[in-house]
Amino acid sequence: MTTARPETPAADAGPAEHLHAALALGDDALVLAQRLGEWTGNAPTLEEDVALTNIGLDLLGQARHLLGLVGDEDELAFHRDEREFRNLQLVEQPNGDFAHTIARQLYFSCAQSLVHRELAASDSPLAGLAGKTVHEVAYHRDHAVQWTLRLGDGTEESRTRMQRALDALWRYTGELFDPVPGLPVDLPALRAPWLRDVTEVVERATLRLPSGPDRAAWAAGGGRDGVHTEAFGRLLAEMQHLPRSHPGARW
Amino acid sequence: MTTARPETPAADAGPAEHLHAALALGDDALVLAQRLGEWTGNAPTLEEDVALTNIGLDLLGQARHLLGLVGDEDELAFHRDEREFRNLQLVEQPNGDFAHTIARQLYFSCAQSLVHRELAASDSPLAGLAGKTVHEVAYHRDHAVQWTLRLGDGTEESRTRMQRALDALWRYTGELFDPVPGLPVDLPALRAPWLRDVTEVVERATLRLPSGPDRAAWAAGGGRDGVHTEAFGRLLAEMQHLPRSHPGARW
Repeated sequence: MTTARPETPAADAGPAEHLHAALALGDDALVLAQRLGEWTGNAPTLEEDVALTNIGLDLLGQARHLLGLVGDEDELAFHRDEREFRNLQLVEQPNGDFAHTIARQLYFSCAQSLVHRELAASDSPLAGLAGKTVHEVAYHRDHAVQWTLRLGDGTEESRTRMQRALDALWRYTGELFDPVPGLPVDLPALRAPWLRDVTEVVERATLRLPSGPDRAAWAAGGGRDGVHTEAFGRLLAEMQHLPRSHPGARW
Repeated sequence: MTTARPETPAADAGPAEHLHAALALGDDALVLAQRLGEWTGNAPTLEEDVALTNIGLDLLGQARHLLGLVGDEDELAFHRDEREFRNLQLVEQPNGDFAHTIARQLYFSCAQSLVHRELAASDSPLAGLAGKTVHEVAYHRDHAVQWTLRLGDGTEESRTRMQRALDALWRYTGELFDPVPGLPVDLPALRAPWLRDVTEVVERATLRLPSGPDRAAWAAGGGRDGVHTEAFGRLLAEMQHLPRSHPGARW
């Protein structure tokens, strides 16, 4: 082993409280990058392979910057246990079919877009970093919007799949707006503009968001506290297999 | 199905003979991109994950441009049979450990660098494209050179692995210099400068290339004629699985 494992920063770390937020946002980016990487070589077209891989690379870059503030980025990525990851459950959800991947991108990037814009305007030590990623995130959002429109307003098959994906992932969207210690962004207040943005896209795509009792079922959550879904264990095993089998290897 | 399968261009296609070369170089880039994509999320460090993914994306971009000249890029990538692929056997070799991947990169990118420089200066319809990729290829070459030096001159373990990788892949390097119809580059004449370049790097890394009887064993080949090694079938199955199971799907 080359370095000791860095401690997860405590939420009450005072002046370094922003590191708690860096870990949460960094884990979101890292885990979603990992999921998008699974499409490499498996996307429906070569063009889409390039697009998804590029988005994954952007996210991996964000993760490296954010986790690099917290400690050794590789130690944090490869040597933490499941319960120590602070990512949203939304980003760890399996790729499913292409429509599921797009729905996950839509929900996440619409939120990330709002969060980064506010963070960039804040006095947080993370403001500079957020400012640099605003344009990337806008591109990710556009990509998801364009595909939502194409799939929703496409064939009967694509429409059915896109609706199913929006419904299936809906329950993971509530957690997007739970407050994150150390993040000077009023997350609960962003829920309304997010819902406006997403609804507008979904309606243009001739689809609908869950309503009535379903809409209230924003129940899933706990990712920020280290509670993850079953699929996350497999993702982590895959991601950590090589570095763990050669601890400290630098060849 | 959205489009008919494009025919592989005949080698004696006259004015369109450059398309034969575009297919050979495009397949090299496509298959190597696929191999590098397998590292996504599995590289030894996050930094290396980014680097390998970037190189893979460059290659995928090259493949799209080259195959796009020949026909429908997706049809060519996803709906050809093994015997119709014209890539070198070198690029289809499995990733193996990280040292194998680097040795493959070193051998291939040193050759690609020489080929693209000559192609860019030729009167081929591919000259413009080659000119645009010269800088990318130079970066890929530098990346492989730096890692060869680090691994060769690193720990005993890394040195042993790097030497083993250089030895194992050596037999696939002869084919790099077999003439390609439609490519106005004297490939056999590039063997000497390539060997000079590679030898210089390998010696700086305190390693050696196979010599004596081994050096003569540049026997493997046939990729340009559609003859591939066992590992290629699995790569292709993985790459073509999704598009083949949803033929013509555009959702």
